[in-house]
Order: sequence, then C-alpha cells, then structure tokens
Amino acid sequence: MSIAASFVRHGKKIVAIGRNYVDHAKELGNAVPKEPFFFLKPTTSYLPSGGFVEAPRGINLHHEVELGIVIGKNGRDISQDDAMGYVAGYALANDVTARNMQNEVKKRGLPWAASKGFDTFTPISDFVPKEQVSDPHNLHLWLKVNGEFRQRGTTAEMIFRIPRLIEHVSSIMALEEGDLLLTGTPAGVGPFNIDDDVSCGLIDASTGQILAELQHG
Amino acid sequence: MSIAASFVRHGKKIVAIGRNYVDHAKELGNAVPKEPFFFLKPTTSYLPSGGFVEAPRGINLHHEVELGIVIGKNGRDISQDDAMGYVAGYALANDVTARNMQNEVKKRGLPWAASKGFDTFTPISDFVPKEQVSDPHNLHLWLKVNGEFRQRGTTAEMIFRIPRLIEHVSSIMALEEGDLLLTGTPAGVGPFNIDDDVSCGLIDASTGQILAELQHG
Ligand SMILES: [Mg+2]
Ligand SMILES: [Mg+2]
Ligand SMILES: [Mg+2]
Repeated sequence: MSIAASFVRHGKKIVAIGRNYVDHAKELGNAVPKEPFFFLKPTTSYLPSGGFVEAPRGINLHHEVELGIVIGKNGRDISQDDAMGYVAGYALANDVTARNMQNEVKKRGLPWAASKGFDTFTPISDFVPKEQVSDPHNLHLWLKVNGEFRQRGTTAEMIFRIPRLIEHVSSIMALEEGDLLLTGTPAGVGPFNIDDDVSCGLIDASTGQILAELQHG
Repeated sequence: MSIAASFVRHGKKIVAIGRNYVDHAKELGNAVPKEPFFFLKPTTSYLPSGGFVEAPRGINLHHEVELGIVIGKNGRDISQDDAMGYVAGYALANDVTARNMQNEVKKRGLPWAASKGFDTFTPISDFVPKEQVSDPHNLHLWLKVNGEFRQRGTTAEMIFRIPRLIEHVSSIMALEEGDLLLTGTPAGVGPFNIDDDVSCGLIDASTGQILAELQHG
C-alpha cells in the first residue's frame, strides 16, 4: 500500500483550511477571508471510522464535516496548474473542535493547536483513490447527529478551490506524500456529545454514488 | 539508527511551547502564563545545521534559540514522574518566527501555524543522546548574529520544567517516538536577515562541555 493510501498511519501532517464556505464564515460571525488561512492538526488526532471521540470534562465539542485531500507526492511552491497532479485521493473527515477553548484562545491571540488537536479529534474515512472521483468540486457532504441532518453542503461552494489551496499552502510549507489537506466545513457546525452517534457521507453529485462514509461515537 | 536519533527525517511533529521564560514573556509585552501553552510546527520546517533560512519578501524574521526534547517512545497522559523515561535525547533549535505576520494573526485571533511554519524555520542541531546530558535543567544556551551575542540563557529558568511540559502536552495529544518538543526561548529574541550568519550553542553548565552547535545563513 502506498504512503498516500495508508496516510492515517504514515502521513506526517494535517493542514486544515479555515472559513472556506461563505455561509460557515458568517454563522460564526467571522469575515469572509480574502486569502486562504490554515492551522495544523497532529496526525495523532486521527480516529478511524467506528471509533469514539474523547475529550476532557468541560470541553464543548463541535463537528465540522470536511473533504480531505490526500497528497500523493512531495512538492513546494506548486502552481495551480500543477496542483491536481499532487492529489492521490480523498477522504471524509470531521474536524472536531473544542469550540469553547477555541473561542477563548482566539480572544487572547493564542494558538489554535490544542483546541483542534486532541487525540480522536480527526475522525477519518477510508482512502478514496482519485480515479473514483469525477469532479472534487461537485461532491455533496453531510453530517448527522443521532440520525438528524446537521450539515449538508457541496464542494461547489468552496471560496478557494483545491488548486488554490494547494498553491497557497505549498508556498509556505512543503507538502509530502501522505499529508492531508482539510478544505473547510460548510454551514451547520454545532455541538455534539461524546455519547452521540455521528455519521457523515460523501457523495458524487453527478452520479449519486457514495464515495465515503464515516461514523463515530 | 533509531527513529529518535533520526528524528529530523522520521519524526512526525514539533510541539513548541510559548513563553516559558519570564524575561522573554515580558520583552514581548505578554503576561507570564499560568499553565503551559503550545503551537505546532511542521517537520518540513527542519533545516539541518549549515543550511540557509529562506523567507518571502516582506517577512520580518526573529530568532528564538531553544532546547529541544526528542521523544523516545509513544505515550499519552504521561505523568510528571514518568516523563523523563520518554526522553531519548536533546537538540538545539532556532524557532524562527515571522514576527510581523505573527503579531498580525495574534491581533486577529488567527492561527500561528503559517507564521511559525515556513520551510527552513526550524534550524536544528545534531541529536544529543540523553546519556550525554547530566541535568537538562542546568544547560546554557546562546545565540549570536554575525558573531555578536543576542541571546544567553539557562534552562534553570524555565517557568514550566520538562516533566510538566511532557505531562501537559501528552494530556492533549499523544507523543510519538521522534517527536520534538521545543521548550521556549529565553530573553533576547530579535530580528535577523537571511544574509546574516546565525550561530547557537548548548553547554552543560556543570562541566562546561559543548553539547550541540548550530549554524545557519
Ligand atoms: Mg474546520
Ligand atoms: Mg487525554
Ligand atoms: Mg519559541
């Protein structure tokens, strides 16, 4: 199995884009960004589908369903024209966030790393090889808590599309095979508890085919 | 060579503590923290000694000389009593910072990742096995720019000592063999340019022995 296909075990970093859907930026009272920005999550936060999110007492969990891009080869200063050649495939992720902690550090100008980086804070689906995806900018993604829809979005509504994200990130830090790029969450983020059942799906909007599923407790 | 001894190649994360020396917290006008906090740097930012720091035009570079702890085995929720058993060795690092960018994101409540994470922003010495270090809390570290001392400190003055840092970080995210924990910088941080010569040293204060040296252009 390639490093990309086994990215959960062998990848070195998770680069997560913030506020990449207009409706989500607005729902948290944030301005729509003029250029992409990102934070890092540690790969120790991966939780394969079927696992259980854990958090210390006093942490308010929020779900953020996101399309993940799995990088297939090393590169830096990648142009938008070349960017899709660096994509090995995709995955569906929940960018779990300790929202009360994140709100506090944002106010104080402190790093986001802890509020995004607890063990189990990146539930992740199986790898989806790029050959299975006709158009990554035409995918539906949804998230349910205890069977109720909370997020439904389409990657057609990303503010910055995948080639632009790869160009931006790789102008700052080299991307390596097995890195994951989280592309931001559509509107509908909200709280869940560790005893809730959370399920997510990624659908090819042109065929209706289910590309990935993800569940966690 | 173990993963720890080859951490620059094989490690997965760099966890960097902020404001762990009183005089440094004060020099940037920050409060002395009541508990440790940290950010993440990508391992793509490592620059072995002898290399050259690069930065885009308009970035104001600051140096921060720091003792690095190389983790020797995997663990989470590590107690202070057990913490030193997870240390494989040490390294000397410069936690290079895009200070103008960091000041801007702090004001806006945005992540620190980019301002700390450019390629070449973690110049790093050779690995120092723990057996060579009699007391990690009694080391001198210094940094010179073009032959002039800019930073001189002692790890005796850390606010939070190594076992407390390992306990804190591992209560949030698992530590893995080859991870690097940067322990914060003493006072004296300041600007340097990409054409300056920067050199750093790590000295065993009880013997006067040089444990590590680091140079970059
Ligand atoms: Mg997110
Ligand atoms: Mg824990
Ligand atoms: Mg530092």
